[in-house]
Amino acid sequence: MRRLLLISNSTNHGGGYLDHVLAEIDAFLGPVRRLLFVPFALADRDGYVATARARLEAIGVEVEGLTADAAGHRRLADAEAVFAGGGNTFRLLDTMQRSGLLGHLAARAAEGLPYIGSSAGTNLACPTVRTTNDMPIVEPASLRALGLVPFQINPHYLDPDPASTHMGETREQRLREFHEENGIPVLGLREGAWVRVEGPRAWLAGRRGARLFRRGAPPEERAPGSPLDDLLID
Amino acid sequence: MRRLLLISNSTNHGGGYLDHVLAEIDAFLGPVRRLLFVPFALADRDGYVATARARLEAIGVEVEGLTADAAGHRRLADAEAVFAGGGNTFRLLDTMQRSGLLGHLAARAAEGLPYIGSSAGTNLACPTVRTTNDMPIVEPASLRALGLVPFQINPHYLDPDPASTHMGETREQRLREFHEENGIPVLGLREGAWVRVEGPRAWLAGRRGARLFRRGAPPEERAPGSPLDDLLID
Repeated sequence: MRRLLLISNSTNHGGGYLDHVLAEIDAFLGPVRRLLFVPFALADRDGYVATARARLEAIGVEVEGLTADAAGHRRLADAEAVFAGGGNTFRLLDTMQRSGLLGHLAARAAEGLPYIGSSAGTNLACPTVRTTNDMPIVEPASLRALGLVPFQINPHYLDPDPASTHMGETREQRLREFHEENGIPVLGLREGAWVRVEGPRAWLAGRRGARLFRRGAPPEERAPGSPLDDLLID
Repeated sequence: MRRLLLISNSTNHGGGYLDHVLAEIDAFLGPVRRLLFVPFALADRDGYVATARARLEAIGVEVEGLTADAAGHRRLADAEAVFAGGGNTFRLLDTMQRSGLLGHLAARAAEGLPYIGSSAGTNLACPTVRTTNDMPIVEPASLRALGLVPFQINPHYLDPDPASTHMGETREQRLREFHEENGIPVLGLREGAWVRVEGPRAWLAGRRGARLFRRGAPPEERAPGSPLDDLLID
């Protein structure tokens, strides 16, 4: 039974790293007190593992870091839960692909290994990373990702700002362009929000809710606490 | 001798399509009064060609549209100048690659065919599209682009907003992450600005200037009118 916690953002404005979601991570992990952290979205992998370790100590969770080598594959085989941290999605995906860890992690998560993703780590859980906000600073062999859910998430979803004078596309325009080319639904997950998946059930939690974009239909609002089971039907 | 006009954005806030840069396009084209427009960054290609045609009529320039087929290759072979319009950079690049037009256009521009790009069309002129702001809604076979200049441009460059509460990366953070992975300089071209290249000379024009990012160095400001010849040295 797949178990997922897909977080929009690691830090809320004015808060500290994971502050807003630490209690949810604690509840999600339940009796599991060991976590394998995936630091590949940032350049300083060791520093990132140290940050996650220091923060998760507060809830009595022991963190080890995933490495992109044979030792990493052994750690993943033994892992009781995984957390893929935020940063640059292309860098994260590229490292997961090159090391062969992408397929390995997809298989373990499909078997029920609890998976936590935040921002880039949430993009990684989707069928592809085609709804990332990140700059393509490296070139993965493919945009295909873990595919742990049958829909796309756009993390850090941002409503249009009527006062803006910037002429770049709004997030809603970008997702409309996505649907000119793709049929799969996209959940625009606002900062402060997350998605829980427990087998056939999914729901929205945290703050501020989400906006659901389906091809050929007007966007729908989903409030915190809303069920998302309908999105799990492929 | 390569001749390029690389524009940050097609429309300034409060203005109409190409208003701020129409006189520059007129001067850049000189005696050339026929332009081949590349509409592939938007889904509605015919509508996009019609928009460009209607706007460029004002300066007595006749527009035809590039198509992603054999007829398009013939039009490109006969073209006197090319303009690649803005939209989604991945969609533009993907169509140029699949049709074989990317290599054809690179060869013609290297021979001196005048090239105008705006936004996605400016990304296309760079060695790769790794500094685009766009969402990867489609998957090109490669991120390699025309390579008409030996540096990267980030169009719609946006200075950090100290009042923002959004936790997504600022543009400067994204470009710093780019330089964690790549050595090539990036010119952050603010809205209203453009780059002219005439053989071995390049300069910045329009409004608001640009911010130059080099790996391992603090960012540099470049004011409107500044020479950019140093960036042409590979």
